Amino acid sequence: MSKKTSAPVDLEKMRHSCAHVLAQAVLSMFPEAKLGFGPAIENGFYYDFELPRTLIPEDLPLIEKKMKHIVKQNQKFSHKELPVDEAKKYLKKINQDYKIEAVKDLAEKDIKTIQFFENIDQKGEGTFVDMCEGPHVEGTQKIKAFKLTSIAGAYWKGSEKNPMLQRIYGVCFENQDDLNAYLKQVEEAKKRDHRKLGKELELFTFDEEVGAGLPLWLPNGTIIADALEDLAKEKEDAQGYKRVRSPHIAKDALYHRSGHLPYYEDSMFPSMDLDNEKYYLKAMNCPHHHKIYAATPKSYKDLPLRLSEYGHCYRYEDSGALFGLMRVRSMAMNDAHIYCTEEQFEEEFGKVIELYLMYFEIFGIEKYEMRLSKHVKEGLGKKYVDNEKLWIKTEDLVRKVLKKLKVPFVEAEDEAAFYGPKIDVQVWSVIGREFTLSTNQLDFAVPLRFDLKYIDKDGKEKTPICIHRAPLSTHERMIGFLIEHYAGAFPAWLAPRQVAFLPVAEVHEEYAREKLDEFLKAGVRAEIMPADDTLGKRIREAEMKKITYMIVIGDKEVEGKSLGVRDYKTKEQNSHKADKFLKDLLKEIKERK
Amino acid sequence: MSKKTSAPVDLEKMRHSCAHVLAQAVLSMFPEAKLGFGPAIENGFYYDFELPRTLIPEDLPLIEKKMKHIVKQNQKFSHKELPVDEAKKYLKKINQDYKIEAVKDLAEKDIKTIQFFENIDQKGEGTFVDMCEGPHVEGTQKIKAFKLTSIAGAYWKGSEKNPMLQRIYGVCFENQDDLNAYLKQVEEAKKRDHRKLGKELELFTFDEEVGAGLPLWLPNGTIIADALEDLAKEKEDAQGYKRVRSPHIAKDALYHRSGHLPYYEDSMFPSMDLDNEKYYLKAMNCPHHHKIYAATPKSYKDLPLRLSEYGHCYRYEDSGALFGLMRVRSMAMNDAHIYCTEEQFEEEFGKVIELYLMYFEIFGIEKYEMRLSKHVKEGLGKKYVDNEKLWIKTEDLVRKVLKKLKVPFVEAEDEAAFYGPKIDVQVWSVIGREFTLSTNQLDFAVPLRFDLKYIDKDGKEKTPICIHRAPLSTHERMIGFLIEHYAGAFPAWLAPRQVAFLPVAEVHEEYAREKLDEFLKAGVRAEIMPADDTLGKRIREAEMKKITYMIVIGDKEVEGKSLGVRDYKTKEQNSHKADKFLKDLLKEIKERK
Repeated sequence: MSKKTSAPVDLEKMRHSCAHVLAQAVLSMFPEAKLGFGPAIENGFYYDFELPRTLIPEDLPLIEKKMKHIVKQNQKFSHKELPVDEAKKYLKKINQDYKIEAVKDLAEKDIKTIQFFENIDQKGEGTFVDMCEGPHVEGTQKIKAFKLTSIAGAYWKGSEKNPMLQRIYGVCFENQDDLNAYLKQVEEAKKRDHRKLGKELELFTFDEEVGAGLPLWLPNGTIIADALEDLAKEKEDAQGYKRVRSPHIAKDALYHRSGHLPYYEDSMFPSMDLDNEKYYLKAMNCPHHHKIYAATPKSYKDLPLRLSEYGHCYRYEDSGALFGLMRVRSMAMNDAHIYCTEEQFEEEFGKVIELYLMYFEIFGIEKYEMRLSKHVKEGLGKKYVDNEKLWIKTEDLVRKVLKKLKVPFVEAEDEAAFYGPKIDVQVWSVIGREFTLSTNQLDFAVPLRFDLKYIDKDGKEKTPICIHRAPLSTHERMIGFLIEHYAGAFPAWLAPRQVAFLPVAEVHEEYAREKLDEFLKAGVRAEIMPADDTLGKRIREAEMKKITYMIVIGDKEVEGKSLGVRDYKTKEQNSHKADKFLKDLLKEIKERK
Repeated sequence: MSKKTSAPVDLEKMRHSCAHVLAQAVLSMFPEAKLGFGPAIENGFYYDFELPRTLIPEDLPLIEKKMKHIVKQNQKFSHKELPVDEAKKYLKKINQDYKIEAVKDLAEKDIKTIQFFENIDQKGEGTFVDMCEGPHVEGTQKIKAFKLTSIAGAYWKGSEKNPMLQRIYGVCFENQDDLNAYLKQVEEAKKRDHRKLGKELELFTFDEEVGAGLPLWLPNGTIIADALEDLAKEKEDAQGYKRVRSPHIAKDALYHRSGHLPYYEDSMFPSMDLDNEKYYLKAMNCPHHHKIYAATPKSYKDLPLRLSEYGHCYRYEDSGALFGLMRVRSMAMNDAHIYCTEEQFEEEFGKVIELYLMYFEIFGIEKYEMRLSKHVKEGLGKKYVDNEKLWIKTEDLVRKVLKKLKVPFVEAEDEAAFYGPKIDVQVWSVIGREFTLSTNQLDFAVPLRFDLKYIDKDGKEKTPICIHRAPLSTHERMIGFLIEHYAGAFPAWLAPRQVAFLPVAEVHEEYAREKLDEFLKAGVRAEIMPADDTLGKRIREAEMKKITYMIVIGDKEVEGKSLGVRDYKTKEQNSHKADKFLKDLLKEIKERK
């Protein structure tokens, strides 16, 4: 949360000033309040306080009112500096012990002067002084649209050893429309929260005895994961990938060779010590795939070799960082490694981008961006493999492909992987939330560490380059994203429940079961909700389960050999000929519409 | 090897006597030889020796000749006993130090008299005395058919700390026909060895840096594993199974609940210690499945609930016990757990047996046997859950189903699992080798430990029983078996390479590529072997790769729009209309013929 935000400078200032005004408002209500930190953050700001009582949600509108009052007065922000000792004296005088500690911390970093901002009202009088680096807007009236959103506990300086303070969060935007749009998106995102829907739709679960961050996929979630794997298989088969399977563990020797040990050790599960050797859960599939490449001799005729596997990896995340499916410790990755010559890279990388675009179209992802992370010259031989020519060449190649395919992208200096340029893929859900989907890497260094070879046309041994790619991300992240994106109402090809038959009365059940059998035989995920509850109750239940098509069977349907179909998404109800509807549904599923 | 064999008593005696005669023969060639142990084993016998020189394979026929000479003389086996001290004195006299040590070991176990057997020739004179428990045949002429097969090193008493002796192996049968059949089977099994064929056909590999017993599936092997999973999905879907996915690790708490810890700990990988908790690689999928059952409330309407997963388990096997794919440390299991009421058990268990029979038919497995392992009364409350009524009831139920389905089975007392009767499934490959395929268990105890519940019709909470089953075994064991069973020439639906097009000359390549495209589009695993090598060389290569159908394209085929198809298995070559052949092939694949 404390990382630098990417907001424009004015908005960043506005958020800082909001935090400042928040502190001023709280102090006016609780003169004995002690102030902690109060930074600008993404979309807003927060401030930490030690208060004589615990805040309740009802306090927020009152504090907000005080803030609005201050904003209206258009108080000016006036900057001043004090030497460390004077700063401490002043803070002592106004009883701000946490701020004194903050000054001491700064002094230890050899900082000599401390920054303060004072509010000056229209009469030219100071109303509130806060120790703060700024920058601030000129006057409070520049604060255009803000709202306090929540209260939380937060340890002073983030450490459990320190006292717990009370944190007030707020959001701040350039205008009321942006604020409203944001609040609406938050509200919508809450409804679409993958943890909430995951439970309601019985997609996945976590279990205390299994362990945190280790999702168990229930039958409904497994259907979605299987459908995604079928999609990957179909598209990868068409591009000539070959599937492989590798174990989930390996000896430390493998990870010393790959370089994951010791550099990546903190993100790996600890070792299992067996027969005087150390085994590790794999955090990545590449080392195993490199071994599969190396298992049989290769010639230029074997390249490009595209090895794919939905490989299950295990990564250590701090338990505090775990979040539903989005931040987990076990993940099934749509992984593949493409081994090719330098000459083949452009075409191969282009095909990977085409896969992404194909998937974006299938999922209706309209907004996406790729971020090309590059080397810098000064890092060669340190952070980056020392081959400037190859860096420039491969970065050019990647850029060329992205331009050719008209993919929106930005470039970032000095953020490449050790072994080559990296491409991060961001997507936005239908309600405008941003997700990091996956990372692709061009790797011209590790194949050498694994001694990977092919015999070229000229009879000489050469080392291939390797593309690491995972367009469908991990099941965890992808399904987490899709739950929000579709608000749990998946298109038929992904929907765990595609069809429910609802006979109006018992007398209609025979025809309903006859149709059910036909649908099941055709491979449709269909069920029946027999007439032992009222139709209304059953319709509500089917709605809650977000079943794609609800098929009501009454007298009219039995007589006319038809189906009364209600579409979950459009809420439209139409009569269809039974055969025609099944045929159309199968087409819809097959074409992933 | 030293476990009790299941041979009939006479054959068992014959094998003991063979070992005895082997020692006699070796001593006659090397009077300074010191004797180790020489037991009867499955199919034969061995004897360990300390010899003045290393044996070479050429020694075996000479030793065999000596043995045959002794056998012909029809020397009688005469039993005698000596008290421990006299036995030691005698062995000291004939310089058999290892035997003296063996006597000491016996004396420590409080054995007072030592058994010897002496050969008596036709003149009534003793020719050779061996310390040995017997039993032996009456005279050497009763030894009907034997052969020495190999030489190996073996530590005295199996410990690396002791001297290395030389072991001679032999086989022994009741008649020459049985011996010949056995030797032929061994020869054939060598050709079909899954380790040899697995390498030649590029199915799987092991890697030192990944670790022993951890197979990596190459693209060709992955095709077979995928085809087996497709088979399982199809048949399990038809029986109403629901697929789930679970992580490969869990906290120790889960395995304490399941009872795997501490009782099964030796067969598990050691723990990973993380955040003050212990995590273990799963050795079984059941605890995870139980948690999935428990994740949502269940009623009698939800039963039977059949949760299936090709789950990857990890088990510790001593490195010396590892053997190709047959004995591994990581395995992908065709696992499922069926939760049902007692009333539903018979039908559910019957369906499991039906799955087995269906698979046996698909794979052409003609000989199989199930072994019903039962409780004994004395073990109740100790080795076995203390509910005699339920034991008898469930054993009866299992027996009834096996009889009803006319499945060949034997019964074994006192070999059940802790929580219910167990059924081991043995199959015989086409050349008559026996494989243990899998184990099914009826579990009426563990669901209780997991507090699994369903609300019955009467509104009361009840605990389901659970069937553990894995008809397709693990990929490792199943594919190992199938490689031998098919001698690597898989039926089309399993074959990694289904079709190869061989244009006779460059001029035929266009038509060949046109057909290749058609086959690929139809989903056939087809490839082309272009005319840049002689046709003969390419045919040999396709034969080596055991490609199911080799399609030669020459003038005749181009003109007649036909295909010259050579069937790998029958070696027949026939001309087919292209469309007709593709259609037939797709049918053959779909129907798994």
